[in-house]
Amino acid sequence: MKILRVNMKEGAINWEPVPEIYEQLGGRALIAKLLLNEIRPACDALGPHNKLIFTPGLLGGAMVATAGRLSVGAKSPLTGGVKEANAGGTAGDTLGKLEIKAIVVEDQPPKKDFYVLLLDGESAQLIPVGQDLRHIGTYATSDRLQEIYGADSTVICIGQAGEYLMTGAGISTTGERDQRSNHAARGGLGAVMGSKGLKAVVIKKAVGISRKLHDEALFRTAAKAYAQKLINDPKLGTKGSQHLYGTASIVGAVNEMGSMPTRNFSDGKFENAAELRGEKLRELVLAREGKIGTRCMPGCVIACRNLFTDGSGKPVVGTVQYETVALVGSNLGLGKLDDVATINYMCNDFGLDTIETGAALGVACEAGLAKFGDIEGIVGLLKQIGEPTVLGRVLGCGAVTTGKVLGIRRVPAAVGQAMPGYDPRTLKGNGVTYATSPQGADHTAGNAFGARNEVPPLGTAGQKELSLRLQIIAAMLDSTGLCLFARPPIIANPQLMIDMINGIYGWGWTKEDYDRFNRDVLRTELEFNKQAGFTKNNYRIPEYMCEEPLPPHNAVFDVPDSDLDAVFDTL
Amino acid sequence: MKILRVNMKEGAINWEPVPEIYEQLGGRALIAKLLLNEIRPACDALGPHNKLIFTPGLLGGAMVATAGRLSVGAKSPLTGGVKEANAGGTAGDTLGKLEIKAIVVEDQPPKKDFYVLLLDGESAQLIPVGQDLRHIGTYATSDRLQEIYGADSTVICIGQAGEYLMTGAGISTTGERDQRSNHAARGGLGAVMGSKGLKAVVIKKAVGISRKLHDEALFRTAAKAYAQKLINDPKLGTKGSQHLYGTASIVGAVNEMGSMPTRNFSDGKFENAAELRGEKLRELVLAREGKIGTRCMPGCVIACRNLFTDGSGKPVVGTVQYETVALVGSNLGLGKLDDVATINYMCNDFGLDTIETGAALGVACEAGLAKFGDIEGIVGLLKQIGEPTVLGRVLGCGAVTTGKVLGIRRVPAAVGQAMPGYDPRTLKGNGVTYATSPQGADHTAGNAFGARNEVPPLGTAGQKELSLRLQIIAAMLDSTGLCLFARPPIIANPQLMIDMINGIYGWGWTKEDYDRFNRDVLRTELEFNKQAGFTKNNYRIPEYMCEEPLPPHNAVFDVPDSDLDAVFDTL
Repeated sequence: MKILRVNMKEGAINWEPVPEIYEQLGGRALIAKLLLNEIRPACDALGPHNKLIFTPGLLGGAMVATAGRLSVGAKSPLTGGVKEANAGGTAGDTLGKLEIKAIVVEDQPPKKDFYVLLLDGESAQLIPVGQDLRHIGTYATSDRLQEIYGADSTVICIGQAGEYLMTGAGISTTGERDQRSNHAARGGLGAVMGSKGLKAVVIKKAVGISRKLHDEALFRTAAKAYAQKLINDPKLGTKGSQHLYGTASIVGAVNEMGSMPTRNFSDGKFENAAELRGEKLRELVLAREGKIGTRCMPGCVIACRNLFTDGSGKPVVGTVQYETVALVGSNLGLGKLDDVATINYMCNDFGLDTIETGAALGVACEAGLAKFGDIEGIVGLLKQIGEPTVLGRVLGCGAVTTGKVLGIRRVPAAVGQAMPGYDPRTLKGNGVTYATSPQGADHTAGNAFGARNEVPPLGTAGQKELSLRLQIIAAMLDSTGLCLFARPPIIANPQLMIDMINGIYGWGWTKEDYDRFNRDVLRTELEFNKQAGFTKNNYRIPEYMCEEPLPPHNAVFDVPDSDLDAVFDTL
Repeated sequence: MKILRVNMKEGAINWEPVPEIYEQLGGRALIAKLLLNEIRPACDALGPHNKLIFTPGLLGGAMVATAGRLSVGAKSPLTGGVKEANAGGTAGDTLGKLEIKAIVVEDQPPKKDFYVLLLDGESAQLIPVGQDLRHIGTYATSDRLQEIYGADSTVICIGQAGEYLMTGAGISTTGERDQRSNHAARGGLGAVMGSKGLKAVVIKKAVGISRKLHDEALFRTAAKAYAQKLINDPKLGTKGSQHLYGTASIVGAVNEMGSMPTRNFSDGKFENAAELRGEKLRELVLAREGKIGTRCMPGCVIACRNLFTDGSGKPVVGTVQYETVALVGSNLGLGKLDDVATINYMCNDFGLDTIETGAALGVACEAGLAKFGDIEGIVGLLKQIGEPTVLGRVLGCGAVTTGKVLGIRRVPAAVGQAMPGYDPRTLKGNGVTYATSPQGADHTAGNAFGARNEVPPLGTAGQKELSLRLQIIAAMLDSTGLCLFARPPIIANPQLMIDMINGIYGWGWTKEDYDRFNRDVLRTELEFNKQAGFTKNNYRIPEYMCEEPLPPHNAVFDVPDSDLDAVFDTL
């Protein structure tokens, strides 16, 4: 495999062999190690010394079900720590097929120009971006670049938010045909891409290339068994709730447990939650000739996506997912899926993380800039991010900045990053993950929702052990290109993963190697953050959530600091 | 002596005896120890657990020349660390005479109401503030409260900036008669006062009370000798530059050495510096029937203040000082003292730190929101802080927030706080102080300008030793109520200070006790910041200043990190 180094100051592009230390790494694991080795963790995240990395996971390109996710990484301008965010679409699969271990983007153009990085097999070039591609959203950017470079090209791009260096900005990727709306959303990586002067990466389709396999039989047996387990899983298969209702299938359960972010995390139950449920979403979308059960990448057998349509059957947004429903729905007091879809589209187009932006809008509503539940007022605020007005810039920088500027103390964020759709006071395992993950408040870093019957979510006992276990698994999944939903079969039988990896690479991994690999990801990330200046005080839930009871359970976040400090003691 | 505890949640007011551990502390030293003992350093600075402390220095109330400064302290919402800022006026002297060691303001009112704390001898009460005192500036607040409580009362208050929780907000104090414009400006302490719902503290004049003295002869001999040394000092006496030209007397020298902040710290020499010099200021003010050589507190023999008047002889602002000239003058490309005075007045009235606000406006100019040198455009921005618009809120939160929101990386700040009027690239001792002081970038924490002939300011050698020495002296001065300008006689003969303290209190301090005291201030503050989560990475000069050469010397800040880390090794 090889690494593509792109220096934005010099305009230099170089292919490099993969150094031995990175050979057995990919995705999140590679990002952590490369950043720790190559940048000063205390550097300015939007300055020339940060590096932006695109990397497929270890299974990318081998047509393993759900393993085509693209990992994007850099020092986060939002958290100040290490960041990996990943997205579906065709990028991860294509890079894997091209045997590209990573694209590493360095430095900044001397003038604030923007470029497109065009990758066509072994040829790579930087093309200056004209005014036609500036200040436009991710949808138009993807459309125009696919018009030029082919409808089957993959476009990785930023919208206005990334161009304007807003720390709530993500990076979007395209999928098959006209599929859009995949986002490596979190941690402000879009702002890092903007700071590099990189509007988009276009990867021409890798035709007729397939991944080299070291032991095809071993690989195929494991990959097939793994896919079959996904298909047979009662939640994930074609009769499962994920496929039928999408990720919003959990709205009812989260609301029932009193963990649904409501009006800036001031309540755990939303009175109109029924209108936001996955079941309702399915009913609505099917009645309007939208789509249910579509996929974000080739080869996925879960197919949890939807194409949300308006009353006239016109597509609104590629997929409405749970975290978005929670953060821009109930968190803003909005009880209509149409409103959620409207905001979702706008965030996607500006290239904004819906979680960060939803939380920022919630804080703005608490400050009185719009009323909770007032879709027109809220859309009015959101529009300003794209222009941008100063208020738009504030909101685009996320929840913490919005709270600071507007003088609001109730900001649902940890490690600088907005919390996803589970209030930590009533799902305390998630609170432990939000606080202690080196990635900042992030459900994909170790979501305890699925373990709610195993560890009582309102209690403090067992949360730190649960969080560690989940964080280790998440670190592994994020390093392979696998989707979070691929967790059950891999947990049940890690040998499947080991066999797939050995089948592709022939590394002869044992269970011990696999365990070490997974833990090493977290160890490396924690070391990066430590060198960036993090102490145990960075790994905390906000003060107000430890004191302000959340209705209806009137719970506070009371996992003791000593437990938070001890999460990684057994890592 | 006694401590007044005011609980804003309960509305409870209690006089307490001074615990033994605080007996021999005052001003900055007391603030550091009390905060470390009584609050969780990692607490939310604008939340209920922070405490706001008003305290005279150890010499307060004893009519020692320049020793009437009031120290205000809290955890800073700007730096996240410990903060003490002090101001002239009559507050320190009056509290000292009343033998009040400190007023400690705790918690927050349940509703967002505002109060005035009225102190009349041993009587203290909280009075709810009506709409007539809300959203008004420090001048009108002081005027109205003196109308009610007597023209000889001291008013300590916040303006709009503090009410709106802006982290660039300071706290103003009144002086004798109609004297205004004293500010404990730095670190966002005005926002802490706002978060406590405290619009003002009014202290009725202590009539006919004088400080009890343990050994009157010892005290008077030392105090007289100290005052005489000030008077005889060639710079400080009535023929000295401080008295004749005020603190702006250094404009020429700072500009000459290439350290004058110019257009957001992008140049070290300002082409119109001659128009901003203290000599020019004197000439202008005297020609316009303003005042030169006035004082900020009773008993000061230096009298460095001016009353700046406009062309028609109407007073504009109580005093135009060097840091303001630098930060809102050359730093904004403004070469007229009238423009500086206009901005100075507005900042004072809104209750804003001129250093923080000048730096924020410089960043805003770099972002293109106004042109450098365009007074109308800049005043237009500043006005928005008082309203406040969202942009006003951003600017009011200071330079770092402004840079983050506007996507500007060139932010002249260290430890979260804007730099005063000496570019650290050409006065490297100040760079070491900005980076390493537990107080954040602050010239009063250890200003190397006066030692420029002793340690070459462009070199790196000797800077860490110089900074430590200056930081120790500054910590002592800030704990006694003395003005920074009182430094020379005390450095020349520390016994004067020891005798004054022993004369008042009878503690029998030796030189060793005095040294230990001074160093303990810094030790305590560093420990607070450590517990708040600071690491060595917090104590740094911004990356761009270490790489971007500053004309005309084309110097970068190159004191090695290892030197910054070692500043306190010998503390």
